[in-house]
Amino acid sequence: MSTTLLNSRDLDFLLYELLDTETLLKRPRYQDHSREVFNATLDTAHTISQRYFANHNAKGDANEPHFDGKAVQMIPETKAAWDALAEAGFLAAHYDADEDGLQLPEIILRAAMAYFNAGNIATSAYPFLSIGAANLIHSFGSDEQKATYLPAMREGRFAGTMALTEPNQGSALADITTTASPQPDGSYHLRGQKMYISGGDQNITENIIHLVLAKIDGAPVGTKGISLFICPKVLVNTDGSLGERNDVALAGLLHKMGYRNTTSTVLSFGENGGAKGYLIGEAHKGLNYMFQMMNEARIGVGLGAAVLGYQGYNYSLNYARERPQGRLPSNKDPKSAQINIIQHADVRRMLLAQKSYVEGALALCLYATSLYEDSRTADTEHQRQQAFLVLDLITPIVKSWPSKYGLKANEIAIQVLGGAGYIREYPVEQYYRDNRLNPIHEGTEAIHGIDILGRKVLLHNGAGLTLFNETVATSLVEAEKHPELSTLITPVSDGLQTLNKVTTTLISNMAENTDLSLANATVYLDLFGRVLVSWLWLKQALTAARGLAQKNIHESDENFYQGKIQAARYYIQWELPEIGPQADLLCRFDDVPFTMKNEWF
Amino acid sequence: MSTTLLNSRDLDFLLYELLDTETLLKRPRYQDHSREVFNATLDTAHTISQRYFANHNAKGDANEPHFDGKAVQMIPETKAAWDALAEAGFLAAHYDADEDGLQLPEIILRAAMAYFNAGNIATSAYPFLSIGAANLIHSFGSDEQKATYLPAMREGRFAGTMALTEPNQGSALADITTTASPQPDGSYHLRGQKMYISGGDQNITENIIHLVLAKIDGAPVGTKGISLFICPKVLVNTDGSLGERNDVALAGLLHKMGYRNTTSTVLSFGENGGAKGYLIGEAHKGLNYMFQMMNEARIGVGLGAAVLGYQGYNYSLNYARERPQGRLPSNKDPKSAQINIIQHADVRRMLLAQKSYVEGALALCLYATSLYEDSRTADTEHQRQQAFLVLDLITPIVKSWPSKYGLKANEIAIQVLGGAGYIREYPVEQYYRDNRLNPIHEGTEAIHGIDILGRKVLLHNGAGLTLFNETVATSLVEAEKHPELSTLITPVSDGLQTLNKVTTTLISNMAENTDLSLANATVYLDLFGRVLVSWLWLKQALTAARGLAQKNIHESDENFYQGKIQAARYYIQWELPEIGPQADLLCRFDDVPFTMKNEWF
Repeated sequence: MSTTLLNSRDLDFLLYELLDTETLLKRPRYQDHSREVFNATLDTAHTISQRYFANHNAKGDANEPHFDGKAVQMIPETKAAWDALAEAGFLAAHYDADEDGLQLPEIILRAAMAYFNAGNIATSAYPFLSIGAANLIHSFGSDEQKATYLPAMREGRFAGTMALTEPNQGSALADITTTASPQPDGSYHLRGQKMYISGGDQNITENIIHLVLAKIDGAPVGTKGISLFICPKVLVNTDGSLGERNDVALAGLLHKMGYRNTTSTVLSFGENGGAKGYLIGEAHKGLNYMFQMMNEARIGVGLGAAVLGYQGYNYSLNYARERPQGRLPSNKDPKSAQINIIQHADVRRMLLAQKSYVEGALALCLYATSLYEDSRTADTEHQRQQAFLVLDLITPIVKSWPSKYGLKANEIAIQVLGGAGYIREYPVEQYYRDNRLNPIHEGTEAIHGIDILGRKVLLHNGAGLTLFNETVATSLVEAEKHPELSTLITPVSDGLQTLNKVTTTLISNMAENTDLSLANATVYLDLFGRVLVSWLWLKQALTAARGLAQKNIHESDENFYQGKIQAARYYIQWELPEIGPQADLLCRFDDVPFTMKNEWF
Repeated sequence: MSTTLLNSRDLDFLLYELLDTETLLKRPRYQDHSREVFNATLDTAHTISQRYFANHNAKGDANEPHFDGKAVQMIPETKAAWDALAEAGFLAAHYDADEDGLQLPEIILRAAMAYFNAGNIATSAYPFLSIGAANLIHSFGSDEQKATYLPAMREGRFAGTMALTEPNQGSALADITTTASPQPDGSYHLRGQKMYISGGDQNITENIIHLVLAKIDGAPVGTKGISLFICPKVLVNTDGSLGERNDVALAGLLHKMGYRNTTSTVLSFGENGGAKGYLIGEAHKGLNYMFQMMNEARIGVGLGAAVLGYQGYNYSLNYARERPQGRLPSNKDPKSAQINIIQHADVRRMLLAQKSYVEGALALCLYATSLYEDSRTADTEHQRQQAFLVLDLITPIVKSWPSKYGLKANEIAIQVLGGAGYIREYPVEQYYRDNRLNPIHEGTEAIHGIDILGRKVLLHNGAGLTLFNETVATSLVEAEKHPELSTLITPVSDGLQTLNKVTTTLISNMAENTDLSLANATVYLDLFGRVLVSWLWLKQALTAARGLAQKNIHESDENFYQGKIQAARYYIQWELPEIGPQADLLCRFDDVPFTMKNEWF
C-alpha cells in the first residue's frame, strides 16, 4: 500500500523549468555538483520517505506519544525514520564539505524535506527543528559551542528545539517571564515554563538541545531584553560525552488534533535550582538571532502545509478517477453506465481548486527558497541584496498562504471523497487534522498580516515591493508572446495595480492612525497572497507555454503543460477576482470590526 | 464545568422578535398553549441537555462505540441521555394530543433540538433520526404499521434510521442495488448492503426500525423503481411484543473524524435468506416518501451545523474576553499592561465573522422551520402554499449554508484560541471535527447546488423566487425608516437584483446546454445563500432597530441590539460583496472546470 508522495514530474518542472535550479551549478559553491547529484539526492529522500516515514503516518496518528511515568514513549518507527534520514546525511547536507556537509543548495534540500513531509509530517518535524536549531548555533554560537553541539546534531545523536512560547504570553514574546541568572562560571540558571514546545521531549535521540528565549536579570523590558540560550536536556562535557541531567523537566504532554507523532510539550526549566543555560552571542539580542531560525521555520511551515495539501490532492484525484457514481445532468437515461466522478464538473472544480492551491503553494515555497539561496550565493552583492529584499517582504505570505490554502485543499479533498473522506479508514481526514496546525504556529495569520503591512512593505522605502513589481512586469511582457495566455495578462496586471493602490492608501494613514490602518491587515495579507500566487501561476503557465512550443514533445508532457495552463486560468479567473471586494474594504478603512465593542457581542 | 449552550437571549430574539412565534397561539392547533408553555419546553430541553448530553460530549468522542464481538458497546451516558429526552416527551412532542403528543409547534421543537445538539451533537443524532423515521411512518404508513411501530418509537423503546446509501452508489440513489422480493404473506425479503447508516446499530434501545430504500424485483430502473420498506432489527409481533431477530446484520462500524458517539454502520440485509421488510405506501414511490424525511433531516442538519458553530463561537468569545496577550500596534510601551485579546481588531473580526455565520445560520434554520409550520397550519390554503413554495426553494441553502459556514466558524474559533484551539484539552477542535460531516451527509454541497439551480428555481414558473423577492422588498421598505440601517439597504437591494440577473441568465441557457449551465451550480448555491442570509441579517437589524427605539430599555438589551446591527453591517459589508466576482463568473458561463480534462490533472 504505497502512498503517492508529491509528483516528481511537477517537482522537476518547478525546480528545473520554473526556477532554473541548474544555473546554481555555475556558482563556486556548487560547481562540483551536477543535476544528477541533485536528482540522486531527491531520489534518496523519496525512497527513505516511502520506506521509513510514510510507513507509520497513520500508526503514529493512532498511537500518539505518551508518558509512561518515566519517559515519553513513541512508536519505534519514529526512531527508525530519524536514523535513516541522519544516516543518509540530511541533517548535515547544507553544510560545506569542509564541515562534513554535502554542500548542497537549499532548494534541493527543501525539496528533499518536502518528500519527508509528504511521507509523515509529524515525524519529519524532528529533523526539521533540529536542522534549524543547528543552523542557528552555526550562525551565532561561539566556536566552543559549535564544537560541543554541532557534530552530534549533524550525526543525529542530538536533536534540537526552539523554546519560545510560554503559557501566559502566547504570541507576545515581549512578555516572556523565563529568567536567566548569571553564574560564576559564565553560564546562566534558567527558570520558567515553556509551552507548545514541539519535540521538547522524545525517545529518539540521546540528547535534546533546547534553544531558549529568556530574560537576564535586570534586562530591559520588552523585546529588547530577550536573550538566547542553549539549554541541553543532558549536559555535555567538554570532550563531547554526556554529563548530568540538566534541570529541564517535562511538565506535560499536550494532545493535539493532528501532528500527533510530534510531541507537544510543556517544559519546566529550573524547578530544582536552575537549568544550566549558555548564552548565544550577545545578551539582549536573542530575538534577532531567533529570527533566523523563525524565518527558516516559516518557509518550512509553509512547505509542510503545501505538502499536506498536495497529499490530499493526490489521493482525491486518484479516487475521483476510479470512483463511478451518477451521470451528467443532461443524461436522463438511468440504464446508461455511471461515470467516474472526475467527469462531474463540480468534482473537477474541486480538483482544480486543490491543484491551484497546492502546486501554487509548492511553487511559492520553492521560489522563496531560491531567493534565500540567491541572498547567500548569487554572484554579486547587489543580486544578493535584491533577493533578500523580496524574500524578507514575502516571508509572511510564504508562511501563511500555504497554511490557509493547503488546509482548504484538504477540506476539499474530504469533500471529493464524500463519506469516505470523513472516516479514518481513508487518509484524507488526517491530512486535514494535521494541516489545521499550520495557520497557528510560527506566527498566526494575524501576526503575519501586521508584519507585512506594518513593517515589511515599509522597509527600505518599499524597495521589496518595487522589485516585486519589476519581476511581475517582466513576466507580463513575456506572456504577451503567447496567445494562449491572453486572458491571464490583464487580471494579473490589474491585480498588481490594485495591490499597489491598496498599499499606498493604507500606509499613507499609518503614522496618523496606526491601529485603524492595521485593523484589516489579515485581509491585506490575503490580497497580497492572491496577487503573488497569481503571478506564480502566470509564470508557471508561461513556462508551460514554452514547453508546449517545443517540437515533438511527449504526450504526457503535453498533458502536463496543458494542466498547468488550465490551473493558471482557474486561479486567475476564479480566485484572484476576490481582491476586488477586499481592496474596496481596505481602501475605505472599513471599521466594522474596529468599532465593535466587547459588550455588544 | 458547565458548558454554555447557545444564547437564550438570542433564541428569544429569534423566536419572538424576529419570527413572531407568539402569533402561532392564535391558530387552532396551539390555542391551548401559551408563551409560558413554549418557554417551559425550551427550559426543559436546556436543562436535560446540560445534565444528560453536555456531560459526555468529550467522553463520547474519546471513547467511541466499538463492537465487542457480540454487540455494539457505547458509553452508558448515551442511553441515559436518550431516556431523559424520551421521558420528557420530546420523541412525541409534535404529535397531536389525541396521539399522546404535546401538540407543540415545530419551531419550538427545533429550538429544543438545538439545545440537545449544543450539548452533544453525536448523542442527539439518535432522537433526531428516530423522530424523522416515526414522522415518515406517520405520514405514509398503513394504520397497522402505525399501530405496530409508532407507540414504541414515541416512548423511546424503538429507535429509527434512514438506510439509503450503499457502498457502490453513494449519492446516486438511482443506482441502488438492494432488492426486495415479494413473499406470500405480503412482506418482502430484502437483500443488499447499506453503508454510512447512522445509528444503524447501538445498545440504547430494544429495537431499531430501519427505513430502507430497495428495488422490488422487476421494478423500473432508476429512481422510479425505488420502494420504501420498514425493516426492523427485531421483528415485532402483532401484539407489539418483540419476536425473532430479523436478518439484518452489522457488517462493520466506521470510524469517523468526529460525531464519534453516533455509530456509523455498514449493514447487511438478507445474508441468511432475506431480511423481512414491509412496504410503506405504494411500490416504486419510495423516494417520494423518503423525501419527506430527507427534507426534515436537511433542516435538521443545517440546524446541527449552525449549533456546532454557535458552541465554538461561545467558547472562543469567552476565551477572548479573558485571555490577556499583547498590546495595540500603536502602543510601543512594553511596560504597559497586556490587553485581553478581544481588544485586538483581528480577533474582533474573527468573532464578528463567527457571530454573523452562527446567528445567521440559526436564524435561517428557524425561519425555514417557521415556513414549514406555516405550510401546515397557516390560516388559509393560499398562505400554506406560499410558505411551502419558499421553503421548497430554499431548503438546499438551509442545509448547505450552515454546514459550510458553521464549519468555517469552528475553524475561526480554533484560530482565536491559537495553540489552545488545536489541542484536545480544549473543546473547540472537537466542534470542528464534528462539523466537517455536515457538508457531506444529507446531500453534498454539489448536489444541493444542482437541486436549487437545476430544479428548485424553475418550479411553478419561479414562483418561489418571486415570493422571496417580495419578502425582501418589504424588509427594504421598512428599513428605510431607520437611519442606522442606511448603509445596509443598497447592498441588499443590489444583491437581490444580482441574484435575479444571474438566475435569469443561467436558466435561459438551461435547456440548450444543461451541463454547462449547471457546471458552476455550487457557486450559484453560495451566491444565493449570501443574498438570503444578508436579507435575514437586514431583518435582524431591523428588528434590533425597533428594539432600540423602545423607551427605557435595559442596558443589556441595548448592547444586544447594537451587536445585531453591527453583525449585520459585518455580514453585508464584508461577506455579501463576494457575490460580485461570483456573478461575473456565473454570467460568463465560465468553463474552466468544465473543459478541464482528466489527463491534464
